[in-house]
Amino acid sequence: MARLNVTQKLIESHLVSGQMTPGEEIGLAIDQTLTQDATGTLVMQEFEAMRIDRVRTELSAQYVDHNLFQEDFKNPDDHLFLQSACRKFGVWFSPAGNGVSHPVHQERFGIPGKTLVGSDSHTPAAGALGMLAIGAGGLEVALAMAGKPLYLKMPQVVGVELTGELPDWISAKDVVLEMLRRYDVKGGTGKIFEYYGPGLEALSAMDRHVIANMGTEMGATTTVFPSDGEVRRFLAQQERGDDWHELLADDGADYDERISLDLTSLEPLIALPSSPGNIKPVREVAGEEIYQAYIGSSANPGFRDFAVPAMMVEGRRIPPGVSFDINPTSRQILENLTNQSYLSRLIHAGARLHQAGCNGCIGMGQAPATGRNSLRTVPRNFPGRSGTPEDRVFLCSPETATAAALTGKIIDPRDLDMDYPHFQEPKTLTINREMLVAPLDDGGLVELVKGPNVKSLPEFDPIPAEFSGPVLLKVGDDVSTDEIMPAGAEVLPLRSNIPAIAKHVFKAIDRDFNQRARDLDSDGFFIVAGRNYGQGSSREHAAIAPRYLGLRAVCAISYGRIHWQNLANFGVVPLTFADPDDLDAIEQGDELALDDIVDALESSEEITLYNKTKDRHYTMRHGLSPRQIGMIRHGSLINLVRTES
Amino acid sequence: MARLNVTQKLIESHLVSGQMTPGEEIGLAIDQTLTQDATGTLVMQEFEAMRIDRVRTELSAQYVDHNLFQEDFKNPDDHLFLQSACRKFGVWFSPAGNGVSHPVHQERFGIPGKTLVGSDSHTPAAGALGMLAIGAGGLEVALAMAGKPLYLKMPQVVGVELTGELPDWISAKDVVLEMLRRYDVKGGTGKIFEYYGPGLEALSAMDRHVIANMGTEMGATTTVFPSDGEVRRFLAQQERGDDWHELLADDGADYDERISLDLTSLEPLIALPSSPGNIKPVREVAGEEIYQAYIGSSANPGFRDFAVPAMMVEGRRIPPGVSFDINPTSRQILENLTNQSYLSRLIHAGARLHQAGCNGCIGMGQAPATGRNSLRTVPRNFPGRSGTPEDRVFLCSPETATAAALTGKIIDPRDLDMDYPHFQEPKTLTINREMLVAPLDDGGLVELVKGPNVKSLPEFDPIPAEFSGPVLLKVGDDVSTDEIMPAGAEVLPLRSNIPAIAKHVFKAIDRDFNQRARDLDSDGFFIVAGRNYGQGSSREHAAIAPRYLGLRAVCAISYGRIHWQNLANFGVVPLTFADPDDLDAIEQGDELALDDIVDALESSEEITLYNKTKDRHYTMRHGLSPRQIGMIRHGSLINLVRTES
Repeated sequence: MARLNVTQKLIESHLVSGQMTPGEEIGLAIDQTLTQDATGTLVMQEFEAMRIDRVRTELSAQYVDHNLFQEDFKNPDDHLFLQSACRKFGVWFSPAGNGVSHPVHQERFGIPGKTLVGSDSHTPAAGALGMLAIGAGGLEVALAMAGKPLYLKMPQVVGVELTGELPDWISAKDVVLEMLRRYDVKGGTGKIFEYYGPGLEALSAMDRHVIANMGTEMGATTTVFPSDGEVRRFLAQQERGDDWHELLADDGADYDERISLDLTSLEPLIALPSSPGNIKPVREVAGEEIYQAYIGSSANPGFRDFAVPAMMVEGRRIPPGVSFDINPTSRQILENLTNQSYLSRLIHAGARLHQAGCNGCIGMGQAPATGRNSLRTVPRNFPGRSGTPEDRVFLCSPETATAAALTGKIIDPRDLDMDYPHFQEPKTLTINREMLVAPLDDGGLVELVKGPNVKSLPEFDPIPAEFSGPVLLKVGDDVSTDEIMPAGAEVLPLRSNIPAIAKHVFKAIDRDFNQRARDLDSDGFFIVAGRNYGQGSSREHAAIAPRYLGLRAVCAISYGRIHWQNLANFGVVPLTFADPDDLDAIEQGDELALDDIVDALESSEEITLYNKTKDRHYTMRHGLSPRQIGMIRHGSLINLVRTES
Repeated sequence: MARLNVTQKLIESHLVSGQMTPGEEIGLAIDQTLTQDATGTLVMQEFEAMRIDRVRTELSAQYVDHNLFQEDFKNPDDHLFLQSACRKFGVWFSPAGNGVSHPVHQERFGIPGKTLVGSDSHTPAAGALGMLAIGAGGLEVALAMAGKPLYLKMPQVVGVELTGELPDWISAKDVVLEMLRRYDVKGGTGKIFEYYGPGLEALSAMDRHVIANMGTEMGATTTVFPSDGEVRRFLAQQERGDDWHELLADDGADYDERISLDLTSLEPLIALPSSPGNIKPVREVAGEEIYQAYIGSSANPGFRDFAVPAMMVEGRRIPPGVSFDINPTSRQILENLTNQSYLSRLIHAGARLHQAGCNGCIGMGQAPATGRNSLRTVPRNFPGRSGTPEDRVFLCSPETATAAALTGKIIDPRDLDMDYPHFQEPKTLTINREMLVAPLDDGGLVELVKGPNVKSLPEFDPIPAEFSGPVLLKVGDDVSTDEIMPAGAEVLPLRSNIPAIAKHVFKAIDRDFNQRARDLDSDGFFIVAGRNYGQGSSREHAAIAPRYLGLRAVCAISYGRIHWQNLANFGVVPLTFADPDDLDAIEQGDELALDDIVDALESSEEITLYNKTKDRHYTMRHGLSPRQIGMIRHGSLINLVRTES
C-alpha cells in the first residue's frame, strides 16, 4: 500500500474523477462551502438560478465581513438578501459583527478530513485543521453548493518539514514570511504546501491558520496541516471536541518536493511595499518612521495575536501621531479579549478599536495618509490596496507591528528593552454562538429579500440553431476584464444588479457601446478581438454583463484562460481564428453568421463563420469540451445544471 | 441689584459690547473653542490665513470624530493637517479613536462659568456644566481663536422648571423629546433654555448633556444648566474637582418666559421619521418591526446610556435580523465599559461594536436597509441623513432602543417583562488622558502638514478702486448654496482644497461656468441673480470658491442672510437692485463696472452700477456696516483681522 501524505489522504477520500498524478484533472467531492458578502451575492443569485431547493453540502456558511461600511442602502440590502438566501437554501448565516469568515469558520465549523470550497482567496486557511480548503470563483462555489464536484489539476505536494523551536519575539507570521522570501508571489503556483515535523509543536491551530492563509500569497493551490493533538486541543477549547479525529501522514509518506525550515534560525521578517514577496529582515529597515500599526485580519486572527500586543503595551503609551488600529477578527475573540482584560490594556494605551471584520485589509477604512508608512499584520500589500494610491504598506507579525507602534519607528522587537511576554492559551474560552444563525429545516416558503439594487440573475436563453448579428465592437490585443467590466466605486456597488452594472460594459473603451447594444434589432451580437482577450481579474461579471446585453460569440486570436471559461459558462461561444490574418478582414459593424452551431461544435474542432457584409467565410476553432458544448446548447452552465438536478 | 439667572450671569461676565436686552446685538468674550474635523480644516486654514501665531483663548480643542472612514488618503491627510495645526497654534488635539467632541470636552475640558464657541451645531451640550456654549460658523470660531468676540442677538431666556422624579424606564432623552413635542423644531429659535428646579436632582451631568445637546433640535441658541452639586460630583469623578465652582441662579431670578415640566408625568417618547419634532408616545407606534437599534452619539453619550442597555440584554439574545449597533462615545467610556463588564454583556448578547466616534449619527456608516425601521439614540432623523434615501429613522432613549432590539419590534420598555435595571454611577472611573495631545509651549517652528488634498486658504487681494468685468452668470430666484457649491461624495472630500473644490462651482446650473471663469481676461467677474440668492446651507465654501474664481460683486434682488454675510466676509460686494426691474435689463455677458467702490460704499447707502455693454446706469444698494466695508477694502475679513493683530 502506498504511504500517503495528508494531502493525498484528503484528495483520495474525496476523489470522484481522475488520478492523483500532478497535472491531471481531478474532480473532488466538496463537504463544505464558505462565502463572504462581497462575492456571496452573486453566488446566491447563481444558486437561485439553478432552481435547487437546498444546498447539497454537509455544511455551507455565509459570512458578512467585507462590505461593513453602510454608507447607503446598498450594502445593508445585500446583507438582508444574503440572510434570506441562507434561510431559503439551508445555509448558516453569520451577520455583520460576527467577524472574518476564516477564523469564525475555523472556530465553529472546521472539521479535520473535510473539503471546503470558498469564494474567497484565503479559504485555504482552513488547512490549519487538516482540511483541504480551496478558493474558487463564485460559480464553482455555487456548483459545490449544488452538490457538484470541484475540478482542478492535481497539484504537486511540497512537504515542508519544520524543525526547531520559535525563538522569543518570532511567531507564525515570520514562518510564512520566510516561505514568501523563498518562493515569492508565484513560486507556489500549482503546489500544495504540507507542513509536518517536530516544529509543529510550536504552532497552535490559529498559528497554523496564519501560515495556511498566506500560502495564497505564494500562488499555492492550498496549504495543509495534519490534524494532531494541537487540533484536538483547539477543538476541545471551542467545545467541539467531538469534531476531532486524527489525520496524519503515513510514516515515510512521500512528497513531490521536500524542503526544510528550521524555526530556531528565524528572525523577525517584514514584507516591504508593495508585494508580499518583498521580504527583508526587520533590522534592515529599522528606524523608518511609521504612521500606523494595524493589528488584525485573517492573516493574524488568533486570540494570541491580540493578547501579545496587549501585554506589550501594558503600562505604556502609543506616541502622538501613531494610529494603533485594532481589528478584532471575531465576536468570540473580542468577547474573550474583553473578559480577560486584554482589551482594556489596548484601549488604555491608545489603541483605536474597530468593529470585527475584514476592514482595512480589503481597503474598507484605515487607509494611511499620503506617503506615510503603515505596518500591518494583514496578508497583502499590493499597491493601493489600502485605498491610498502609492501607499507604503509593510506586512509583519503582531510583535513587530506593536514594537513599531510603541516606538513610532520600525524596530526589530528583539531590540525593545522588554521581556518577551510569553502568552499561554487559556484552557477555556467563552464560546459565542449567539449570533450564528442556523439553517431552517425547510426554507421552501422563504421569500428572497431583494432591495432595489438586488436583482435575480437574468435568464439566458439557449443559442438558436442559426445565429447572425453585427460585430458590435472590434478591439485590439490584451483587452482586460477591467476594460470589459470596470470595477471602482461607481460600479462595484452594482455587483448584485446585472441590468444596472451592464450599463458600464466597455465604457472605458467605447462610450457608445451600450447604446448600440440597446438599439440592436437582431437577436444579439459578436465581439471581435485580437490576442489575450479577457486577461486579468477573474470576475464573472465580465462575461455575464455582455451576455445580458446580447453577446453570443467572441472571435479572437487568443483568450485569457479564465475569461474563456467564463464565456462558455454563460453560454457565449468563444472562437479563435484558425488564420489570425482573418482578423484584419472583419470590420466593426460587419454582419456575421454561424450555422448549425451546436451540431458544428459537437462534430468538429472547427466551425465556419460567414461574413455577410463582406461575403467571406473564415475558419474558426473552438476548444470546448462536450460539457462546455452542453453549456452553449442550454444557454449557460446554470441552465445545464438545472437539467441535471 | 438685579436678580440674575444663570444665563445672564454667564453673559454679563463675558459681555464686551451691547446690552442684555433680548434682540439687541451683544459681543461676548470667548474662553474656549471646540472644532471637529469635518469643519475644523477650514477653521485652521482661516486661522492660518490670519497670520496669528497662537490661539488667544484659554483653551481650544480640536477633535477628530466625524470623518473616521479612511477609504483613501484624504481623510487621514486632513487628520494630520489638523494635528500639525494644533501643534503650531497651541490647540489640544484629540485623534481618531478618542471619541465624540462633546462628551470628551465635557469629561476633560468643560469648566462652569466659561464660554465656548464650537464649529458644530451640538456645541450647546456643554451647557450641562454651567457653561454658555454656542455653535457657530467656521470663520466665527477662527475669530474666537484669534481672541475676537462672538457677536449675536441677545436671546430670550426660557426658564424650564423641572419638578418630580423620573419614573423607571424614563430617562433624560424622554425629557428633551417632551420639550421637542412642545416646541417642535423651530420653537426654540432666538431662545436659550435654562433648566432649574427640584427635578434636576434626577439628572446626572451627562443626562443634562443629553438635554442641552438636543436643545439645538428646537432651534435654540443654547441650553444652560446651573453648576450645582451634581456638576461637582461629575468633575470630581473626572479627577477635575478643582475645576468646579458653583454657578446658580439668584433666588427669585427672572426669566423672559417660564415653563414647567413634571418628570413624574413623563412616558417613553419617540420621534417618528423624519423630524426630531415628530413626537409620539412609544405605545402609539408599538408593534412595528425594526431592523436596527443604534446606541450612541452625542445625544446619549453617557456611561449609563451604554450600561443600562448592557444590563437589559444580559443573559438574553438579540434576535436574528436585528442589528444592535453600539457606538461608544469616548475612549474613556469604552475603557470603563470594558473594565466594568458592561461591554462583554453587550457583545455576548449580539451587539455589533463600532469604533468610538460620530459614526452613523452623521451618516458615516450603519445606514439602514431599504424601507427598514431604525431606532436610534442620536439627535436627528432628517430625511436621508442616515445615508439611505427615504430612510425610516426614529429617535428614542437607550431604554426604548434596547427594548426594541430585544423584541425585534417597537415596544414601550415598560411593557417588557423585566425589572428596571437601576444604574448606579460608579464612584470612581478609570480616567484616560493618554491620547489627548497637549499644546506645545511654542509651536513657532512647527510646519503645517499638507497632503496633496490640503491647501492653504488662497490669498484674496483688496478690491481695486475701480473694477469692471463681465456678468459671468445670470441666474433666477432662490438659487441655493447647494447649487453654488454642491456637496455630495465627489465634492465634500475636497473641502480642504479650494482650488480643487472651486472646479465644481455652479456645475449643476451651468457646466461651462468654470471654463468661462478660467478664460476670463479681466480681473474678475459679476454674478447677477434674482430673489433669495444663496439660500440654504451656511457653508462658507459657497462664498470662498466663487471668490477664488474671481467673483468681485453680486447684484441680486435679495439674499439668503448667511450667504450675504459670507460674501462680505470674503470680500465680495453684495449689492441689491434699488429697482428690481433693472434685473431684466442686464444679460449674461454684459460688461459691468463700479467706480470708487470703497469710497462709494462708505459715503452712501447707494452705489451706481454702470453697464458698459448697454450703456446704462443702475442704482444699487448695500446694507454693509462700516466693519463690513472694511472687509471689502482689505479683501476679506481675514485680511482685516491681520491688520488688527
